[in-house]
Amino acid sequence: MNEQGILHIPDSQYCFPVSEREVVLRLRTDRRDSIDGVWVVYENKYAIQTRRLSGRMERKYEDRLFAWYETKLELEDPRLSYVFRLIANGKEQYYSEDGLSETYNFSLAYFNFFQLPFINSADIHREVPWMRSAVFYEIFVERFCRGRNEKNDGYVNMKWGEKPHPKSFAGGDLPGITQKLDYIKGLGVNALYLTPVFQSISNHKYDISDYHAIDADFGTNADFARLVEEAHGRGIRVVLDAVFNHCSENLAQFQDVIRKGRQSPYYDWFLIRGDKPEKSPLNYEVFAYCDYMPKFNTSNPKVQEFLLEVAVSWITEYNIDGWRLDVSDEVSHDFWRLFRKRVKEAKPDCVIIGENWHDARPFLQGDQYDGIMNYAFTKACLDYYAFGNLDAEGFAQKLSALLMRNTDQVNRMMLNLLDSHDTDRFYTSVGGDRDRLLSAAAVMVMFPGAPCVYYGTELPLEGGYDPDNRRCFDWEQAHWDAAYMEKLKALMELREERILQTGEIRMHAGNGLFILKRFDRSGELTLYCNRRDESLPLAAEGPIAAQNGYGRGKIGPEGFVIFRNRIPEEE
Amino acid sequence: MNEQGILHIPDSQYCFPVSEREVVLRLRTDRRDSIDGVWVVYENKYAIQTRRLSGRMERKYEDRLFAWYETKLELEDPRLSYVFRLIANGKEQYYSEDGLSETYNFSLAYFNFFQLPFINSADIHREVPWMRSAVFYEIFVERFCRGRNEKNDGYVNMKWGEKPHPKSFAGGDLPGITQKLDYIKGLGVNALYLTPVFQSISNHKYDISDYHAIDADFGTNADFARLVEEAHGRGIRVVLDAVFNHCSENLAQFQDVIRKGRQSPYYDWFLIRGDKPEKSPLNYEVFAYCDYMPKFNTSNPKVQEFLLEVAVSWITEYNIDGWRLDVSDEVSHDFWRLFRKRVKEAKPDCVIIGENWHDARPFLQGDQYDGIMNYAFTKACLDYYAFGNLDAEGFAQKLSALLMRNTDQVNRMMLNLLDSHDTDRFYTSVGGDRDRLLSAAAVMVMFPGAPCVYYGTELPLEGGYDPDNRRCFDWEQAHWDAAYMEKLKALMELREERILQTGEIRMHAGNGLFILKRFDRSGELTLYCNRRDESLPLAAEGPIAAQNGYGRGKIGPEGFVIFRNRIPEEE
Repeated sequence: MNEQGILHIPDSQYCFPVSEREVVLRLRTDRRDSIDGVWVVYENKYAIQTRRLSGRMERKYEDRLFAWYETKLELEDPRLSYVFRLIANGKEQYYSEDGLSETYNFSLAYFNFFQLPFINSADIHREVPWMRSAVFYEIFVERFCRGRNEKNDGYVNMKWGEKPHPKSFAGGDLPGITQKLDYIKGLGVNALYLTPVFQSISNHKYDISDYHAIDADFGTNADFARLVEEAHGRGIRVVLDAVFNHCSENLAQFQDVIRKGRQSPYYDWFLIRGDKPEKSPLNYEVFAYCDYMPKFNTSNPKVQEFLLEVAVSWITEYNIDGWRLDVSDEVSHDFWRLFRKRVKEAKPDCVIIGENWHDARPFLQGDQYDGIMNYAFTKACLDYYAFGNLDAEGFAQKLSALLMRNTDQVNRMMLNLLDSHDTDRFYTSVGGDRDRLLSAAAVMVMFPGAPCVYYGTELPLEGGYDPDNRRCFDWEQAHWDAAYMEKLKALMELREERILQTGEIRMHAGNGLFILKRFDRSGELTLYCNRRDESLPLAAEGPIAAQNGYGRGKIGPEGFVIFRNRIPEEE
Repeated sequence: MNEQGILHIPDSQYCFPVSEREVVLRLRTDRRDSIDGVWVVYENKYAIQTRRLSGRMERKYEDRLFAWYETKLELEDPRLSYVFRLIANGKEQYYSEDGLSETYNFSLAYFNFFQLPFINSADIHREVPWMRSAVFYEIFVERFCRGRNEKNDGYVNMKWGEKPHPKSFAGGDLPGITQKLDYIKGLGVNALYLTPVFQSISNHKYDISDYHAIDADFGTNADFARLVEEAHGRGIRVVLDAVFNHCSENLAQFQDVIRKGRQSPYYDWFLIRGDKPEKSPLNYEVFAYCDYMPKFNTSNPKVQEFLLEVAVSWITEYNIDGWRLDVSDEVSHDFWRLFRKRVKEAKPDCVIIGENWHDARPFLQGDQYDGIMNYAFTKACLDYYAFGNLDAEGFAQKLSALLMRNTDQVNRMMLNLLDSHDTDRFYTSVGGDRDRLLSAAAVMVMFPGAPCVYYGTELPLEGGYDPDNRRCFDWEQAHWDAAYMEKLKALMELREERILQTGEIRMHAGNGLFILKRFDRSGELTLYCNRRDESLPLAAEGPIAAQNGYGRGKIGPEGFVIFRNRIPEEE
């Protein structure tokens, strides 16, 4: 065995409770090891010296380097102590906090067993139930639909449909979204993620000058209340964008600091080196290099209270269903812990989605966010579908490894996306190939977590990097590709399947195809994707749940098929 | 290279800030890899595409399996993005979130670089300054000294000095400790850790029935106030034992539940299955199997508030300097986070020491405890000095690996101990060998963290497992071994050396000796320990800081020597 390749970390994604008496355990090994079996040997810490239970672990996931074994234990006692027992090359070995050994002395186990000392209810990461079936639609509000035609539109400086510039205004607003809720619902969507809607002079509104006011160009607070009400009436939830890392320099508190410097009661709300904020040279912390977006000092309790009140008031006054957290990885853990407490107190099933582009495990331990925008998933899809960096096997391995970064609960509350207002549009990345886009969408819908479709993907819209990825939605139905749109809708509707909500997942490559299987006791759904430039034979058969480019017994280039199989009841 | 052996985890003990602009980075590799050099290539995340800095990492620690490379970066920007560059077998490789690769495309780095997104002040684990020079003395209060001779001592049921039974009472109390503060100070001690002092019917008082009252057998609240005052007057800090996992069944709130069952307002303070607590079969959660110690439901906000008020009131009313947390691993993270906030608000340099016998990383991220009772250190010392499970090299490796479990700050706030009221006395474990005890004490004093000497070690007292490890202190000076005691005191006084407080550490084995070196720019202290049953030659020379069994050029069996070397100023 490759002893250095083994990894287990208690009280992490390798050992976590999913309820007061259920624990998931994972063990990572070198995938090349010749392992005949892995068991967890366990009991409560006071009993393990004299009696033990044993549970076999299943080899579920592999990537290029590692294999992951997993099991779920049902406990009688909330205290779990355990070591692993492996049979490798016919030889028994034990793995404890002190590493591998050929024998294990259970009478001294308390010194080096692994443990989950006590499953405390307060530490269990609870799933937000509605996320299990959520299908998100991200709207860049300024470009989706103009609803208020009577408004003062002197600020609009581009025609609807023109190529946008960084400072273009096309006139999209909240009433426009409300008008289109039936259209959105018809796509199979049941949750909206809206880019920021609060007062701001930019088109993207990530520089907010009043956190309590809907931006006048987007409508009124009453318009927003109506949007939420109408959305809820259709079973559509609404998630807003919380820009709490930074604000606009026009925020009253920052303006006060500009005027009064250290004398301002808001001086400590920001991170300033010097008596007052200056732009040249820049002497205060900002978002990126944007001097008009000063960073909040979220270590300051007064700033914390200000932002927490904002977070709670949009829940209690407008009944929103979640917050997406902008640049959340640059805000302190301390703040997000307070944020979670207050938000979940106000509305327990309010979802919290961070914007972390990287492994976000330190934020996803159950005390801060529920999930993140899953850009690592995005990257894997780009590597497979656009960049050619991964073949089918590499894609299966990469996605498997991503699942092993987090707990089951977090995986189920991920926002999986192919693109967003911060990336090229996926359709453009794959060279305008609708078949490839559909195939990737099939993976997104089948993967644990909530799929999030960027507005216009259903047309599909083209778009390179910002601002090109923020083009106006094209409401001219004659321009739409109805056949393509129907295929995408069929995929989005698959989320209603319980198997996709809670079933297990396995991924591998076979015969050149990427194969993703979801299953539970009721049956299975299996996706086959062909990224070769030739048709590939497929032995599998059965009722088809969704497909593109599948002919009996073979899948065409860039095609996919999802088979539905009922598993016969056990006798 | 053994690709599976590489490990780096951002925002963990492998990457942590020690100030707003200083970050320690560590990289773990297979120790057998032929690595010529390791560098961290870094910049802030917006600049890394176009320009990078590079810092060489030093191979500092090794154990049986791994080598750890480390460096500390001084940053200009609080946002750190980085990948590692390695030269192994003459070949350049990069290590990123996506693993090893032969080349690295920095223009796409934002997808898979490692990062510390922003160093937020609130997330930095701050050291408690006085812990740097702390030398602890743990007192099992009932057995240290009886001071109040006028008290009603009908409860005393053993003669001072007899072998204790589980329910023995010898009469030790707080005034006894106060009387002996000059003696304690004379040992080189500057911090006391007292086992519980609150109202309880047991001799150990880990089953508390009133968290606001000093136990009458131990004295009065005024006696405690006087003890703290007198201790502080001598520069001795006082740390109390917080038994917050469970209480006594005699706690008024539990008694109320016994009487009223579900009708009691305190029913939810405990974890009861059924209408009221019953002992047979036991239907409520307890400490271990002790039905008289019901476990608190620390997920209940009312319980949290009750215990937090207790924690704060002993700080604000009596000015204690820290809390040691009993059975802390069975209490929720959620509770300890609240606890830290409230305790540090009340007294920023109040230290928080958990009782976790295992790798406690999830509790030591800066949001919960400062350190733990370092029983893994205890076990390593037992393996080397008592059980023969480790040789000098194995001991150096084990201690090195323990350092790599946690951040520098945590390592410096560890409570390092050879024994406690919960273990056999170390002196007994090493078969009554004072030389071995002194040698181990030398390691404890030289190791990062605060040494904690269990009362009586200076005599030394014998003692097997509980209750034998809780014998009465022997105040008959004729019984003392003055030469041994002086050697132990000399070691404890070494803690005043700045090198031991903040210097670096390296450990290895050489010529059969265990060698531990501490150093900074001002000089170094080097410990050599001989655990062979023969004298071993030693080439090193210099002024001696402490020693036992060292003769010029050789160390006798079980001997040790600590050399002091000044490093010449750089020119």
